[in-house]
Amino acid sequence: MASTNPARGMRDFLPADVRKREYVIGIIKEVYERYGFEPLETPAVENLETLMGKYGEEGGQLIFKILKRGDKLLEALSGVDSLGTLEADLDSDGLSTTRKTSESIFSDLALRYDLTVPLARVVANHRNELPKFFKRYQIQPVWRADRPARGRFREFYQCDVDAIGSTSTVVEAEIISAACDILDRLGFNDYEVRLNHRQFLSKLVADAGIENETEALVALDKLDKIGQDGVKNELVSRGISEDSADKFLASVSGGGTNAGLDAILRFCNGKPVRVDASLARGLSYYTGAIMEIVLTEGDFKGSIGGGGRYDGLIGMFGKEQIPACGFSLGLERILVVMEERGMFPPEIAESTPADVLVTIWNDETIADSLKLARELRSHGLRVTVYPQADKEDKQWKYANSIKVPWICTVNETDLGEGMVSFQDLRSRQRYREPFEQVAAKIKEENA
Amino acid sequence: MASTNPARGMRDFLPADVRKREYVIGIIKEVYERYGFEPLETPAVENLETLMGKYGEEGGQLIFKILKRGDKLLEALSGVDSLGTLEADLDSDGLSTTRKTSESIFSDLALRYDLTVPLARVVANHRNELPKFFKRYQIQPVWRADRPARGRFREFYQCDVDAIGSTSTVVEAEIISAACDILDRLGFNDYEVRLNHRQFLSKLVADAGIENETEALVALDKLDKIGQDGVKNELVSRGISEDSADKFLASVSGGGTNAGLDAILRFCNGKPVRVDASLARGLSYYTGAIMEIVLTEGDFKGSIGGGGRYDGLIGMFGKEQIPACGFSLGLERILVVMEERGMFPPEIAESTPADVLVTIWNDETIADSLKLARELRSHGLRVTVYPQADKEDKQWKYANSIKVPWICTVNETDLGEGMVSFQDLRSRQRYREPFEQVAAKIKEENA
Repeated sequence: MASTNPARGMRDFLPADVRKREYVIGIIKEVYERYGFEPLETPAVENLETLMGKYGEEGGQLIFKILKRGDKLLEALSGVDSLGTLEADLDSDGLSTTRKTSESIFSDLALRYDLTVPLARVVANHRNELPKFFKRYQIQPVWRADRPARGRFREFYQCDVDAIGSTSTVVEAEIISAACDILDRLGFNDYEVRLNHRQFLSKLVADAGIENETEALVALDKLDKIGQDGVKNELVSRGISEDSADKFLASVSGGGTNAGLDAILRFCNGKPVRVDASLARGLSYYTGAIMEIVLTEGDFKGSIGGGGRYDGLIGMFGKEQIPACGFSLGLERILVVMEERGMFPPEIAESTPADVLVTIWNDETIADSLKLARELRSHGLRVTVYPQADKEDKQWKYANSIKVPWICTVNETDLGEGMVSFQDLRSRQRYREPFEQVAAKIKEENA
Repeated sequence: MASTNPARGMRDFLPADVRKREYVIGIIKEVYERYGFEPLETPAVENLETLMGKYGEEGGQLIFKILKRGDKLLEALSGVDSLGTLEADLDSDGLSTTRKTSESIFSDLALRYDLTVPLARVVANHRNELPKFFKRYQIQPVWRADRPARGRFREFYQCDVDAIGSTSTVVEAEIISAACDILDRLGFNDYEVRLNHRQFLSKLVADAGIENETEALVALDKLDKIGQDGVKNELVSRGISEDSADKFLASVSGGGTNAGLDAILRFCNGKPVRVDASLARGLSYYTGAIMEIVLTEGDFKGSIGGGGRYDGLIGMFGKEQIPACGFSLGLERILVVMEERGMFPPEIAESTPADVLVTIWNDETIADSLKLARELRSHGLRVTVYPQADKEDKQWKYANSIKVPWICTVNETDLGEGMVSFQDLRSRQRYREPFEQVAAKIKEENA
C-alpha cells in the first residue's frame, strides 16, 4: 500500500489550518487593497527558460522541473546523440554538467520559484494594459526543492507587494506603512522596522578600505546570528584586513543616515521605524533603500518580512529599466508565531464546521429538519444537518465531537405545535421557541 | 529575448480578472460554509505513485510529472541498464512502453490532476482527526497536459464539495440545495438540476437486453451532443442490436423514477430538480444518484456542474469502503458565462485600484497628502497616493486612466485653512471640506 502522507516537504491543510491561514491572508489583502494595491495571479507553471538563470547557481538547482510529455519526451529519449552526450558528460566533466544538460533535454516547464520573476514577465507582457504606476500584491504558493527542515517547506506561500514605475521615496513610505498596518491589525506589538540604504552601505564599505563589497555584505548580513565577533572573523577569513573589518563594523554600528532615509522616516510618521546602518539584506539586486521588520520580544525574535528598492530587476524581460520597490511578508513565519503566542481570535482559534447542528428525529421528519436548516441558513447561520435518522445519543455525541455550539431538534410533539427545541451546548441552557424565532434567539444568545 | 507569454495553456490573471474570480469564489465559499462544509487544501505536488493508475490510461498521460533532482536524477541517468532498457523498449514494444518506463525512471512527483484523489489520500491519512461525517469543499487549481483549446486550459480551478461517511439521501439533497443556492446568489435563473440513478440506469440497460453496460452509458452520455439518432448509431456500431438500442432509448426517454430519487426530490423542495432517465455521466465510478446542472437558455446552454454518489473511491488508500457523494461546480465555465451575460455587479465589473486618488501638490506637502490618505483609509476607503510631485494635469490624467472615482488635492491654501479640495470624477462635482469631514462626505455621496 502506497504512503498516504503528502509528498516530502509538502503539507495538507485541514479545516482548522485553512481557517487560520485565510484569516491572516484576509487581513493582508484588506490592508493592501486599502493602500491601492491590486491583486495579481500568475500560473504555478512557467516555461523553464523564463526561470533559468534568474536565481543563481544554487537557486537554479532548487527549481522543480517538469518532465517533457508525449513525442517531445520520446524525442529527448531517442536522440542517440543526446544520450551519448550525457554519458560523455558523466565521464569527463563530472556530475553538475550532466545534470544541467539532462534537465534542459528532459524538461521544458518548471514550477514557480518566487513571485518576482513572474511579475517581471507579466509587466513586460502586459505593459500597455497596466497603469503607469502599477501597485500589485500577490499571495500564492512557490515551490523549492530545498532540504525540508523545521519551518522550511517545499511548497510555501509568498506574500509580496511591489510598486512599479516610480523612484519616489513616497513608495517606500507607503509600503512600510502598509506592512505596519497589517501587523497592527494582526495584533503584533513588538515589531520594529529597520531601514538602511544600499548606497550608504557601499560608502561605509569603501570608507573602510574594503574592495569586495558583496563579500562584506554577505558577512554583515549574519550580524544577528553570529554577533560582531563572528562577522569580524568572517570578514578576516574572506581576506579583509583586521583594521578594515574593525573600521567597517564600527561605522555600521555607529548609526548615521542620509537624505533619502530621512524622508522615508518623516513620511512613516508614527510607525516604529529606525535606521540601522548594519542592515545588509542578503540579496544582491537591491539598489536603494532596504528594510526588514523584526519581532523584538520573547522566543520568536527575528525577521518576519523584508524588502527594498530594486531598480534593475523588473525590466529584465524588456528593453527599459523600470524602478520598483517591494516588500515580502513572511506569511508562514507569521502563522507560526501567531499560533505560539495564541494571537488568533476565538472564532478562528476554536473553529467549528457550523454554528448549529440540526438532528433528525426519524425518517418521517427529515424534510422538517431540512426546512429548519434552510430557515436558519437564511438568517446567516452556518448549519449542518445530521445526515440520517439515528439514536439520539449518537447525534449528540457527534455534535460534541465537532464542537458545534448549538443543537436543534425537531421532534413530533414540537412539530405539531410549530415549535423547535434547542440547546446551547456550552452553557447547557435549553430553549423552546416557535420555528420562525429560533434563528433570532440563537443570534441574540451568541451576541 | 525569451517569450514573456505565460506557458502554453496557462493564464495570467490581471487585477480585473482576479476580482471577478474572487467574487465568485467568495460566494461559493460562503454558501458551502453555511451548509457546514469545511475548507481543505492539499499540496499542488503529490508523489507520482499516489496519482498513477487512478485516472485510466488516457488520464495518466495527461499528468504533469516532475523531473527527479540531484543525485536521484544522476542515478536515473547513469544506470546504464536503464538507458539500455529504454532503447530496447523503443525498438521492440513501441513508444508507449518507452514513455511509461522513462516517466517512472526520471520522475518521482507529479502535479495534482484533480481534487478527489488527494481527498481520498487525506481521508486515509487523517482518519482519526476528521469527523465521522466529513463535509469538505476545496477550491484549488489542477493541472492537465491536455491540448489547449477554447475554454480548455492546462491550469484551471476545480471547485469540489464532498460529503463522506453516510449513505443517506439527505446528503444528495443537501449537496443539490447548496449548488442551487450558489447559482441563485450568482444570479442564474435558467438552470435545472437533472437527476438519475446508476442502478436505475443499469436496470434499463439490462431490460433492453444490452450486455456491455459501460459501452451503453458512454454512448448515452453523448445524447445532448449528438441526439437520439446519433446515440442509436453509436450503440449499433458498438455491436448492440438495433432492437436493443431502440428499446434502451425509448426507456431512457420515457422517464420513470425510483424510491431513492423520490426522497431526494422531496428533500430538494423548491429547487428546480427533475429526474432525467437519459442522464448517464461519463465517469465509471458512480454507484448511486448522479446529477448534473445545466443552463437552459440562450447561447450558453449546457452543463455547469455535475456529481453523484461514489461509494467505492474514497476508501482507495485504506482498508474500508467509505460512502461518499460529491459535486463539482464548473468554475471556469461559470466565469465565462457570467462575463458574457454581464452578471457581475458594477463594483466588480468596473473594478478600480482605489476609491480615492490623493495628489501631491509639491515636495513640501507630501507628508500632508500621506496624512490625508491615512485619515481616509481609517474610515475604510481604499486610497492610492500619486507617488511624486508632478504637473497637476499629469496626476489628473493618471486618475482618469485608473478610473478612480474621487480625486483629492491638498494645496497650500487649503492646508493653511485645514481644508481639502476634492472632486467626483464621474459627476465632475467639486467639494471643499474640513480635513476630518472628507471621508464622511465621500461615503455619503457614494451611498
